[in-house]
Amino acid sequence: MLLDNIGLLISNDPVHGEGRLGLRRDAALACADGRVVWIGDAGKAPEGTAGDRVDAAGRCVLPGFVDSHTHLVFAGDRAQEFAARLAGAAYAAGGIRSTVAATRAASDAALRANARRLAVEALRQGTTTLEVKSGYGLTVDDERRSLVAAEQIAHPGLPHLVTTFLGAHVVPTESADDPDGYVRLVTGPMLDACAPHAAWCDVFCEDGAFDAAQSRAVLEAGRARGLGLRVHANQLGPGPGARLAAEVGASAADHLTHLSDADIAVLAEAGVVATLLPGVEFSTRAPWAPARRLLDAGVTVALATDCNPGTSYTSSMPMVVAWACREYGLTPDEAVWAATAGGAAALALEGHGTLRPGAPADLVVLDAPTHIHLAYRPAVPLAGLVVRGGRVVYSMPGDREKEQQA
Amino acid sequence: MLLDNIGLLISNDPVHGEGRLGLRRDAALACADGRVVWIGDAGKAPEGTAGDRVDAAGRCVLPGFVDSHTHLVFAGDRAQEFAARLAGAAYAAGGIRSTVAATRAASDAALRANARRLAVEALRQGTTTLEVKSGYGLTVDDERRSLVAAEQIAHPGLPHLVTTFLGAHVVPTESADDPDGYVRLVTGPMLDACAPHAAWCDVFCEDGAFDAAQSRAVLEAGRARGLGLRVHANQLGPGPGARLAAEVGASAADHLTHLSDADIAVLAEAGVVATLLPGVEFSTRAPWAPARRLLDAGVTVALATDCNPGTSYTSSMPMVVAWACREYGLTPDEAVWAATAGGAAALALEGHGTLRPGAPADLVVLDAPTHIHLAYRPAVPLAGLVVRGGRVVYSMPGDREKEQQA
Repeated sequence: MLLDNIGLLISNDPVHGEGRLGLRRDAALACADGRVVWIGDAGKAPEGTAGDRVDAAGRCVLPGFVDSHTHLVFAGDRAQEFAARLAGAAYAAGGIRSTVAATRAASDAALRANARRLAVEALRQGTTTLEVKSGYGLTVDDERRSLVAAEQIAHPGLPHLVTTFLGAHVVPTESADDPDGYVRLVTGPMLDACAPHAAWCDVFCEDGAFDAAQSRAVLEAGRARGLGLRVHANQLGPGPGARLAAEVGASAADHLTHLSDADIAVLAEAGVVATLLPGVEFSTRAPWAPARRLLDAGVTVALATDCNPGTSYTSSMPMVVAWACREYGLTPDEAVWAATAGGAAALALEGHGTLRPGAPADLVVLDAPTHIHLAYRPAVPLAGLVVRGGRVVYSMPGDREKEQQA
Repeated sequence: MLLDNIGLLISNDPVHGEGRLGLRRDAALACADGRVVWIGDAGKAPEGTAGDRVDAAGRCVLPGFVDSHTHLVFAGDRAQEFAARLAGAAYAAGGIRSTVAATRAASDAALRANARRLAVEALRQGTTTLEVKSGYGLTVDDERRSLVAAEQIAHPGLPHLVTTFLGAHVVPTESADDPDGYVRLVTGPMLDACAPHAAWCDVFCEDGAFDAAQSRAVLEAGRARGLGLRVHANQLGPGPGARLAAEVGASAADHLTHLSDADIAVLAEAGVVATLLPGVEFSTRAPWAPARRLLDAGVTVALATDCNPGTSYTSSMPMVVAWACREYGLTPDEAVWAATAGGAAALALEGHGTLRPGAPADLVVLDAPTHIHLAYRPAVPLAGLVVRGGRVVYSMPGDREKEQQA
């Protein structure tokens, strides 16, 4: 496929354009076998790439969003809890347990259908890579089947899926009197059953969930099974999560709403990616994470949705970019990088989140002339075309290109 | 058409259900000749309405959004100004002038195409009634052709359009030395040319735009031509706009970011609808309007997008609802009422914004079980089906109903 007549191409590769975003005007991009094979000037594609030409009509093209933190495998709905929180009730980690009950009661088919629905929804907003966690099963079998559900919905027409084991999301009700016993279950039989279906091991290190020692045990057990490590850290208050992430060499620490300067220094020193989740802060009326302090300290920042039914039931990476600009004080360049290449860094996915020869041909044609419009036009559906593996997998109804083809 | 199997119907009519929203579970709604003709229980439709049956699949149905404040007739783009503001530059009313230059240079066809594009975008997010202002022409001919452009795009497949004359948006550059001369132009030849193409007369009463005396002159001249009155008031700071709106008996005062208790009491006393525009406050980092104080004082509140290229380039009424809940402290019930019936009150459109026999059959089938989801799922495209005048004018790609029909 040749994507021609690109008004503004964001390659995220300084070799291919200006600045960190590798901005290039009046560009074209060719792909073959699911990968980018050539980037150059509009109208100047090499012979042999013109067969399947898509006209970007002067619009902005960027790498598909890499949403590196979601919880798509669940059942049920917590709209009433959300409405109660709007009316003043506080969020507590224990709210997770109501989704656990619904998830355990749901069939495998129901879990797959719900996760697929949300993955489609994300795709239509430009997400081409999606991390999906377990964590609402909290038994050996329910955690395993949650991850298997995520594996089974994989499809070339959906975002690329990456699975994370989060058996240590919260201590389930039946283990409330024996949290250490639950940690032994997680680090033993549960991980044995789940590790074959996951790339990553995560833990919710927070008051009300798991303390530093318990979290360390979970992460070490995950590492022993060959999983990469990530941590839910410092969401509800100050705590040891961020420092633990650095200590164990986690790829990413996520949330980070409450960070001291010392925490930030430790993350920077260890090279841990800070994954910020403004949808949570919006939906729970929490303070906004100290994104500028993290950037100024040299920490790599990723942006993700945390799509889940309790604290951030949005799949909209464009809105995450808009919040990051408005509430975190990021520039549109910083926010777009964090929502694409930043997510790929958090997931250690080489090439994803960039558009350069060899990278996956996963991209979005925005129905707008620049990436600034993601913040400038909040909540407006702007994904005109979404391409995954070199194939158009979504086009906005009435998209200009679609009309040309019709 | 019979819309059956509605999980939750929001009628905005207490006669047809519970509370101010007139909530009714397991409902059905029949329409004929573009109007609602019957509301009752699911599966119990009277004979003769079943011919053209649409299955709402248990989802939530609400009146289409009434977006009572937009500026869709313009040319150009102010993304760079927006990015500069993110980086710390202040918003000033004079920014309007850059859009004026682009609008004057644009052809009628270009103005129509841009307005139509945005009206389609709004429709796809559930807006079925759309107020559209002039105000980027600021000459007799450019104001007139702006309103004519809005008239000419009217189409049964777009939202119902209501036009507002806003020649007194800002003093154009060429009249900077003679603002009173410009007011004489507006109140004389410009209104003569524009009034036949408008239902409303509006004025931007603010430092940097028009003072109270100038604004009063514009409104009185509009009233003399038979136009209804509305006022841009108290956006950038305290000022006389809200009190002027009450004094002249305007239908609505819009923005109202900066209000004293005395202003609020005057609005309540006069029965002026307060149209709040959270997209502006989001996009300009302004304080949030005192929505709760207005509601607590008994003022009728409407919510609108203010879709315009300078201060709020969003067409998303669902996001406006989400902001109103998060930032204004409205309940989802209050916000949804304000975004539907509230907008209709601001535009004095009897029946619009409600679903009861005799009302226009303008509605949205949300791809969600409740209206709470508009706030609970921020920025997610949730308009499953949009019905205008009893006809499906938009269906989300892959919508369940659409799949059934295919």
